[in-house]
Amino acid sequence: MSAPAIGNILETILYVDDMARARAFYENVMGLEAGINDQFMTAYRVGNTMLLLFKRGSRLEDQEMPNGDLIPPLDGAGPVHFAFAAAQQDMEAWRAHLEGHGVAIVSTVRWERSGTSSLYFRDPDGHVVELAAPGLWGIG
Amino acid sequence: MSAPAIGNILETILYVDDMARARAFYENVMGLEAGINDQFMTAYRVGNTMLLLFKRGSRLEDQEMPNGDLIPPLDGAGPVHFAFAAAQQDMEAWRAHLEGHGVAIVSTVRWERSGTSSLYFRDPDGHVVELAAPGLWGIG
Repeated sequence: MSAPAIGNILETILYVDDMARARAFYENVMGLEAGINDQFMTAYRVGNTMLLLFKRGSRLEDQEMPNGDLIPPLDGAGPVHFAFAAAQQDMEAWRAHLEGHGVAIVSTVRWERSGTSSLYFRDPDGHVVELAAPGLWGIG
Repeated sequence: MSAPAIGNILETILYVDDMARARAFYENVMGLEAGINDQFMTAYRVGNTMLLLFKRGSRLEDQEMPNGDLIPPLDGAGPVHFAFAAAQQDMEAWRAHLEGHGVAIVSTVRWERSGTSSLYFRDPDGHVVELAAPGLWGIG
């Protein structure tokens, strides 16, 4: 039996220790706009995907919805690595933007197979964020 | 200074203890097809996004590329939560498919705000996987 179809990865979750600090980074530095949010979660639409910040330790138990359905424990640890897509021609603008906000570029990697490059830096919780051109993976 | 544009979240990483076990799940159960892979990483294209499995403990040090560039340490911990997009009309087919592979559905959540539902289950490393309709986040 073959699996039904899957679309994109829809949600990527980062666990953060200080929601205000994390929001300042993802909104003021990365330029994301908060959607649904409370003290435990902030949701950002990122193209056709979602970045969710979860306060670490807030998802250790089932969460009961008004209709009685249960969201299972979703807590996690970290740090983790993830990447945002950015256009190759914007990489130097991103470098200047990040450095202008005092964000150190940990590394720049030029990928032979795609001719693109990636910038790596850390968010306030130590997650290693990458800005990568989709062409790295043959995504147009 | 406003930030340059961001596209989708391009890469989401899961840290796994047993690459063969994790691959069996993501390929045989979830139906993904492996791209670039070695003993430390398996890359899956998922729509216009990438799921990368990293062997836990294999990314503790810089990795030097043939051109001398350094990929920084990318190791992480877990488990984490993430979601694949799936069509709402495929959710019951997904439930049958997963149960047919012996994967227990941890919870089913019906979302009032979107009228969609999500299935939650665990992968072999304890990551909580969700199948969610993009309409949950207003993504068409």
